[in-house]
Amino acid sequence: MKVSDLGEFGLIDLLAGIIDASRDGQQTSWRKLLLGIGDDTAAWHGDAAVQLATVDSFIQDVHFSLETASWRDVGWKALAVNLSDIAAMGGQPRYALVSLAVPGHTEVKDVSALYQGMVELAGQSGVAIVGGNTSSAPIVAITVTVLGTAAGSDNRLLVRSAAGVGDKVAVTGHLGTAAAGREMFDKRVKCSARVAAIFSEALLRPCTRITEGQLLIKEGAKAAIDISDGLIADLGHICQASRVGARLDVDRVPVAPDVKACFGDRALGMALAGGDDYELLFTATGEVVASIREAASCPVTVIGEIVDGGRVGEVSLFDKQGKPFNLSQTGWEHFTA
Amino acid sequence: MKVSDLGEFGLIDLLAGIIDASRDGQQTSWRKLLLGIGDDTAAWHGDAAVQLATVDSFIQDVHFSLETASWRDVGWKALAVNLSDIAAMGGQPRYALVSLAVPGHTEVKDVSALYQGMVELAGQSGVAIVGGNTSSAPIVAITVTVLGTAAGSDNRLLVRSAAGVGDKVAVTGHLGTAAAGREMFDKRVKCSARVAAIFSEALLRPCTRITEGQLLIKEGAKAAIDISDGLIADLGHICQASRVGARLDVDRVPVAPDVKACFGDRALGMALAGGDDYELLFTATGEVVASIREAASCPVTVIGEIVDGGRVGEVSLFDKQGKPFNLSQTGWEHFTA
Repeated sequence: MKVSDLGEFGLIDLLAGIIDASRDGQQTSWRKLLLGIGDDTAAWHGDAAVQLATVDSFIQDVHFSLETASWRDVGWKALAVNLSDIAAMGGQPRYALVSLAVPGHTEVKDVSALYQGMVELAGQSGVAIVGGNTSSAPIVAITVTVLGTAAGSDNRLLVRSAAGVGDKVAVTGHLGTAAAGREMFDKRVKCSARVAAIFSEALLRPCTRITEGQLLIKEGAKAAIDISDGLIADLGHICQASRVGARLDVDRVPVAPDVKACFGDRALGMALAGGDDYELLFTATGEVVASIREAASCPVTVIGEIVDGGRVGEVSLFDKQGKPFNLSQTGWEHFTA
Repeated sequence: MKVSDLGEFGLIDLLAGIIDASRDGQQTSWRKLLLGIGDDTAAWHGDAAVQLATVDSFIQDVHFSLETASWRDVGWKALAVNLSDIAAMGGQPRYALVSLAVPGHTEVKDVSALYQGMVELAGQSGVAIVGGNTSSAPIVAITVTVLGTAAGSDNRLLVRSAAGVGDKVAVTGHLGTAAAGREMFDKRVKCSARVAAIFSEALLRPCTRITEGQLLIKEGAKAAIDISDGLIADLGHICQASRVGARLDVDRVPVAPDVKACFGDRALGMALAGGDDYELLFTATGEVVASIREAASCPVTVIGEIVDGGRVGEVSLFDKQGKPFNLSQTGWEHFTA
């Protein structure tokens, strides 16, 4: 059955049913909810915590392709990129609203699968989907808004502008896997089934470092950002907001081993500029990084330092011999849409 | 200059500048704001009030046409439809997030005008625009999320499910003007310049009944909804949610005089089913309606009653002789997209 056969109100009822089935009375978000889908607005009990809000649109053939992503993947990632923004503040996501535009000829089962993907990730993340709207459009476009709160009772946040000279620059996890997934799909790069699954998962169903973001706050990290534009670009955003520069030791960047095995020398470029990793990039004193590394359940790697001098916002790259390094040396170029 | 020449970060800087220039330190929303555009999320001080959230997408050639609406109008209405949802709860809008997708060949001055329209209405409504994102897309699509709070210290809301048998059904303002605007543009109906301006304004820059919604709460109204789908359809939503029926006296419906003058007998159909009026439709006891009418700065008209019996959700139409009335008698038919 097609969306146009079901009609707007039929579709809303179906989606509300999927969300209602996912209701989890154990979760704070659901317990505080007064009104979900079905009134003019959603409503829930407020509290004195600092409130966080972020929105991102996920547009067919700009941000995803239905040739490589399943509908379930699309729903997952449309939510994930927003959860990642809350994670980068050290916050706790609570509520999501979903605005969905699809062509009338879209299969109802596909829209259901999209919501199943979203509901699955929401459930894992303590998020209640409480509202949204549906409309017709010539392409698929999903806009997800996520609302959250500061996670600790002291209401502290990780902000881009808090980096200070002398801070270590560190990153969670490994980098380059999502870019490898994009290369694999776009250029039909051949990989083993095992590696193809890892690359595809990284691109289509990225991790969200919510627990790690809250750990960063608890241990006293300063600035943070999630890596969406790419390591160098996102470190540049921190430097710009903090009016400082950064020195990045490219040989310390934790390139994902499978990316290195598959792409050789180009792997470093993918880790430096590929983007879409959704790992957390942060600054902290050396001691704080050490205690975060101790407590974290994922790798935490120091890759550079916040420095004075030079242009504000500038990220300088060096190799292990201390020689300036140029991104073009990696032989990998990334063209953004 | 085109959006593609300016680039994503240039565009964000420009839009952030427009919003920043509108910052109003007198407004509660701005005073409580900790982080606006420029970090991973927006952040503000929370409070114990009940929180409200709503989202709506506004899509080119589905919800608006750039042949009839100016870019400034598009920005205005994309925000207005969401403010209207908050008004229908009796709430106070506080913050908005804007996700904007435009083709790369869009003129930067047009996007600026869109934001100017949005910022103008936000300023009038006590709303701070605190976040968003931009992306490219084959069509213009604006998704606005509005967050608000219950307006009174008792945290009461106007919900669709609160209508009770014996309640009067009442409506603010006059109806049919937005539908008249749509007819005028779509079918090139000729009107005087004065009337054309009224119809066009109603369609492109609708009112938002925020003050009236808060008055409804204060005076003790029960259920409410804003008229977006059309009077009959939206009264049906209240009846469905409240598990009751309604009787509508069509001769009491406040059809806008200019619509009556221009469209004759068809005007009633436009007021009953045209939609997009964004007036508030509500239920209350007769005494409460009287005190609302007394205090309101716009017309408030009783048009029917909540009734028992019949099918749940059913809205029955009667004329002043008490005879059943059929919408088709108006000779006006509305085809929704």
